[in-house]
Amino acid sequence: MATNGQKLASANEAQSGAREQLLEAASQIMREGDTIDLSLSELSLRAGLNSALVKYYFGNKNGLMLALLDRDMGKIVVELNALVAKDMPPEEKLRRHISGVIDTYYTFPYLNRLMMRMVRDAAPIEAARIAERYLKPLSDAYEVLIEEGVKAGKFRPVDPQLFYFSVTGAADRFFSARLVLRHCYDQHDISPEMRDAYREHTIELIMRGLLAD
Amino acid sequence: MATNGQKLASANEAQSGAREQLLEAASQIMREGDTIDLSLSELSLRAGLNSALVKYYFGNKNGLMLALLDRDMGKIVVELNALVAKDMPPEEKLRRHISGVIDTYYTFPYLNRLMMRMVRDAAPIEAARIAERYLKPLSDAYEVLIEEGVKAGKFRPVDPQLFYFSVTGAADRFFSARLVLRHCYDQHDISPEMRDAYREHTIELIMRGLLAD
Repeated sequence: MATNGQKLASANEAQSGAREQLLEAASQIMREGDTIDLSLSELSLRAGLNSALVKYYFGNKNGLMLALLDRDMGKIVVELNALVAKDMPPEEKLRRHISGVIDTYYTFPYLNRLMMRMVRDAAPIEAARIAERYLKPLSDAYEVLIEEGVKAGKFRPVDPQLFYFSVTGAADRFFSARLVLRHCYDQHDISPEMRDAYREHTIELIMRGLLAD
Repeated sequence: MATNGQKLASANEAQSGAREQLLEAASQIMREGDTIDLSLSELSLRAGLNSALVKYYFGNKNGLMLALLDRDMGKIVVELNALVAKDMPPEEKLRRHISGVIDTYYTFPYLNRLMMRMVRDAAPIEAARIAERYLKPLSDAYEVLIEEGVKAGKFRPVDPQLFYFSVTGAADRFFSARLVLRHCYDQHDISPEMRDAYREHTIELIMRGLLAD
């Protein structure tokens, strides 16, 4: 016979399962439709769950979108901080970071647009939380990484904030341009091979652009 | 006494005036709100014109957005083609082009998102027209420009299509990130000085990234 503790654990598990299912369904809809606009009925259909659960877990659609941002951005910040802390040449750190950014945008092509939308439309306190939790840590990590490379005589001195915009922009543009690829080049999705080619291209372009003479 | 011709010319002028006013009002709303979503009532208020004129000139809101895309993108294609045709070292052509891209995105920060939205939501025939008129000519011009630079021994051989995504992405990210700047760095708009700093940064990063050893 199950104890109360076991029952609670099992209820929590089911709960977390439905919550994750809703987030994953939203993620898939955004990725496939190349959009960050989603309807609750579409979401409910895809997740195979009653749309009332959105209200239960997230309050409303905006709450669900914030939770998706937390799910997808959290990892990036943790990984970048771990990378910056490593004992490794700064050029190698940056190569790995750019590679990680490309992979992230390949998996979550909506991520940048989602963040912009949340910062734009969220209540000021929520926008400040997003900035504090994701944007500032990323910005700080770039500052440390560039400074380290400049001190080691490896990087040109560049403005880390501007450099951050260049890197994420170059990575984001490719994956948010799937529709352009479709209409101009008759490529119906970005294959892992194209992702790899773009990863190589971007790393090479940016590293050469940054390295000291 | 005005002739019929003069009357017609004057009517045409007034007409073109109202049409241009609506486009300019839409452009300002998109720029200031960092959005490509606009309401007809907001547009009508800003332009000081009856919103029925949108239907008269453009059919519907989507037609107005297409006309705005035509207004803002047309110039870019013409200028890039003129630049490619010039008798000038390829590095200098590319520097000038990147500089022009930065200026365009500074003036029309919504342009990339507007194009993506139109390609995504327009009827297939309209999406094909956008691709034919704007995206393919840009892509072709990049191909010619890169090939010229490689032949002259100035550029590394890179994939022009991937390179195109890197350049527009780096330029676009900065100007579509005004909200991030506001929340993270307390900068309430992008000043002409910041635009100039980003222009220098981007040209330097990309040219160094592309130049042959």
